[in-house]
Amino acid sequence: MTKEFDFLNIIQSIIQSEYLGDDCAYLKEYGLTISSDSLVEDVHFSRAFMTPYEIGKKALLVNVSDILASGAKPKFATINLSGKLDNDFVCEFYKGLMIVANEFDLKIIGGDLVGADKINISITVFGDTKECNISSRKNAKNGYVVAVCGEFGSSAQGLEDLKNKKDTYFAKYHKEPKLYPEVSENIAKNVKKPYAMMDSSDGLFDCLYQISNKSNVCLKIDYDLIPKKINDKNLVLYGGEDYALVVCLDEEDFKKTTGLTKIGFCTDGQGVIIDNKKMEYKGFEHFE
Amino acid sequence: MTKEFDFLNIIQSIIQSEYLGDDCAYLKEYGLTISSDSLVEDVHFSRAFMTPYEIGKKALLVNVSDILASGAKPKFATINLSGKLDNDFVCEFYKGLMIVANEFDLKIIGGDLVGADKINISITVFGDTKECNISSRKNAKNGYVVAVCGEFGSSAQGLEDLKNKKDTYFAKYHKEPKLYPEVSENIAKNVKKPYAMMDSSDGLFDCLYQISNKSNVCLKIDYDLIPKKINDKNLVLYGGEDYALVVCLDEEDFKKTTGLTKIGFCTDGQGVIIDNKKMEYKGFEHFE
Repeated sequence: MTKEFDFLNIIQSIIQSEYLGDDCAYLKEYGLTISSDSLVEDVHFSRAFMTPYEIGKKALLVNVSDILASGAKPKFATINLSGKLDNDFVCEFYKGLMIVANEFDLKIIGGDLVGADKINISITVFGDTKECNISSRKNAKNGYVVAVCGEFGSSAQGLEDLKNKKDTYFAKYHKEPKLYPEVSENIAKNVKKPYAMMDSSDGLFDCLYQISNKSNVCLKIDYDLIPKKINDKNLVLYGGEDYALVVCLDEEDFKKTTGLTKIGFCTDGQGVIIDNKKMEYKGFEHFE
Repeated sequence: MTKEFDFLNIIQSIIQSEYLGDDCAYLKEYGLTISSDSLVEDVHFSRAFMTPYEIGKKALLVNVSDILASGAKPKFATINLSGKLDNDFVCEFYKGLMIVANEFDLKIIGGDLVGADKINISITVFGDTKECNISSRKNAKNGYVVAVCGEFGSSAQGLEDLKNKKDTYFAKYHKEPKLYPEVSENIAKNVKKPYAMMDSSDGLFDCLYQISNKSNVCLKIDYDLIPKKINDKNLVLYGGEDYALVVCLDEEDFKKTTGLTKIGFCTDGQGVIIDNKKMEYKGFEHFE
């Protein structure tokens, strides 16, 4: 297990909140799902590879991705920005960010600015849940289909390409991952039974493991069925930041959706089995 | 004007949001007010003066203060914490934070943890607006009473004392400012007309100036009426982080409230006049 899991266990033991467990908290009585994430310079992004405009765009995009994976419609965001700020950075950052805000018709409702050594972007996004079936990691069941939308490993490959100063399709993908709002919306509106959906921010394997763990089912995956444009199995399974969708849903519901590719199914048991091999957890580790 | 005002002008010109202008955004249709703030190590606090437990406590307290000043009841918060984290820091920080969460019956609904050089705490707090009259800086009117609750300059005096290694009443106040939830609740429930209310996070003068500016009225203040435990006029007017309440409200409404001290009134005109002297803006500047 990673240090992050340790921290999360400590925190949950202290705060004992019934709202934790998914990327988004679901405030049913207020009709909102809410997600909050921080992006830190030289941990999540490097100014050597990305312009302020690109940073602003990606910062909001990856937060919107969490709301879409909850099944809700992104509506509002607060933006806290700290760092060595000047007019040019602030201007370009917000111009990039507004491209995404306008694309999703999302309103910026507040935030904060602080001078600091390194850039730290903390965004909270709010999604409207009206007429939406909201997902949860704990909703997968024996017999459910495991399906995905998007491609896996492209962003991690892109980061390698950027480090090697290669201007490739993958480098572009890393800077601006593709979201599939029409697919998550279709799922949230048409799926009738409880279902699990996550975006692969920490990699495909992490999604499969989290769903298996919270739902207490075993996920059996056929590696060849995973959509990918690269051959490096390590990057396909463990590379982060693709923001593709990973879904476990009832077979009848699966037939009613569009845009999903079946890669396996849920059975009794625990853990993740890929091509008949039980896999150990391996994930991102920011805390070295 | 400060650099922060420059940035805010740039941002507002790009995002053109109708939700900005107050410390809290008011999402009327969802029944929530929302505030988001970042606290950065060596900008807002120093580990030389404060333990992780005290940092956690103050971090949530100052965010709760914004919700109370909006007139709403604090209900939920997301906590994004980055820094050189270890089990001890995370544990003590959350223990301190939960003292405040439990005091206000507020639920932690999510957040994020990231490894980074310096501590950066970004908190978003949500307040329920049911049966509450919600405040706005633009609501002051000619003839309104200017009233306050709390004390001014104590926190700034406390920071000086901490730097001089003096363990005083003010040092304790700086670490743990006093909030007056019963007063803001009384106002939100009993005041009928529109009113302005702010917490003095950036100092008393900043509150008076912001309300004057957004409401397009002149605030005339009698310095002797300002509640204070120190004699340094500079700290009383410009010292930050007291989190006292500054309110402009109708005279009839003022009579219905409890816990407020009248320090002046609103007239036609612009700006802030203290003891018949028009004052120039002077405020905090994090961006040197």
